[in-house]
Amino acid sequence: MHQEEHLKSSDFITDMVIGMSDGLTVPFALAAGLSGAVSDNSIILTAGIAEIVAGCIAMGLGGYLAGKTEIEHYQSELSREYQEVDTVPEKEMEEVKEIFAEYGLSTQAQELIATELAKDKTKWVNFMMKFELGLEAPNPARARNSALTIGASYFVGGLLPLSAYLFTNTPEQGLIGSTILTVICLFVFGYFKSKVTGQPPVKGAFKVTLIGLLAAAAAFGIAKLVS
Amino acid sequence: MHQEEHLKSSDFITDMVIGMSDGLTVPFALAAGLSGAVSDNSIILTAGIAEIVAGCIAMGLGGYLAGKTEIEHYQSELSREYQEVDTVPEKEMEEVKEIFAEYGLSTQAQELIATELAKDKTKWVNFMMKFELGLEAPNPARARNSALTIGASYFVGGLLPLSAYLFTNTPEQGLIGSTILTVICLFVFGYFKSKVTGQPPVKGAFKVTLIGLLAAAAAFGIAKLVS
Repeated sequence: MHQEEHLKSSDFITDMVIGMSDGLTVPFALAAGLSGAVSDNSIILTAGIAEIVAGCIAMGLGGYLAGKTEIEHYQSELSREYQEVDTVPEKEMEEVKEIFAEYGLSTQAQELIATELAKDKTKWVNFMMKFELGLEAPNPARARNSALTIGASYFVGGLLPLSAYLFTNTPEQGLIGSTILTVICLFVFGYFKSKVTGQPPVKGAFKVTLIGLLAAAAAFGIAKLVS
Repeated sequence: MHQEEHLKSSDFITDMVIGMSDGLTVPFALAAGLSGAVSDNSIILTAGIAEIVAGCIAMGLGGYLAGKTEIEHYQSELSREYQEVDTVPEKEMEEVKEIFAEYGLSTQAQELIATELAKDKTKWVNFMMKFELGLEAPNPARARNSALTIGASYFVGGLLPLSAYLFTNTPEQGLIGSTILTVICLFVFGYFKSKVTGQPPVKGAFKVTLIGLLAAAAAFGIAKLVS
């Protein structure tokens, strides 16, 4: 989503956080929900693994497409800017001036910036991309890396809570083991996530854990109602 | 994620796309996976609804926290910039010059920009926030709106594929109905999503549909293996 904008330096961590946030929460909550509705651990494991695989592919491929779209979008805007700089340079120079007029610069300063920028077409276009459109050149390997990191983090995050149902005999036991395991994982994950995003880590850890528990409690309640 | 950066004008559509992308894919794939593993529609419905509730809360609250974090982060960076402008104005003026040195502006122009910007502290700080840090003032209502839009879209997106299991008698029939319904929904959704993000709509519709079908096929295969 949009919270890790200050983490631009580390796409890997951003992607891991995206994948693991949902991976630790949704399969855990699904399994908790089913624990209140079915009597057999094997159904919970089957559903849990189906969910993990589905979520992994949906999020991983979603991340891949998102990355590809970002690159295509950047390229198409880039050619448009080059074309505008070639065909309507006066209009583009006006746009440069407008950017600085907003920050209270004198017309003399605006004039000077626009004239100097116009001397180097590549730098001018790069300037417009960043300062007019707010776009930065995306890393071409990002799409593939994003897909793999998000997918793998979802997978690992999802298997941890589910593993409790493998080593217990009833959904009740599985739910207890899964909850203990997941609360620990969510707390540790929330702590480090907050640390890398520059938030207070303990507060962040409690928030992340609370979301997981709320999702599980709601899924449990609804599944019990439905069944 | 990061694909809708050019949609900044419409947070609502961005959030709807985020929620519906996953909502149309994951519960459908989970139900498909279970269709190959269990013999009773009611288990699929229970699991599907538990998943939708879990995903809805995880994504909705996740969106809420993300929005809150964004605001806190912006505020903390803002106070830091104000402090820097007060305590080390020369250093901040150097930073302004560096930004423009990168675009090949003369030292005379750099000097002029820095001097003029320094005249109005608020505008100077806003300039540094946007052009040095790449941060824009977040909408304070965004966090709550994000949570509601993402959660509701996930919910609606997830219920559509699942409804087929309510009106059929066996998982096989449910799977057929659900697949037809979901393919239509994914195609229409992919078409409009691509249209609003400025991508070729038919190509985008095929991509989105393909991800949904791949996720469902993988979940089906894995669930059959596990059970």
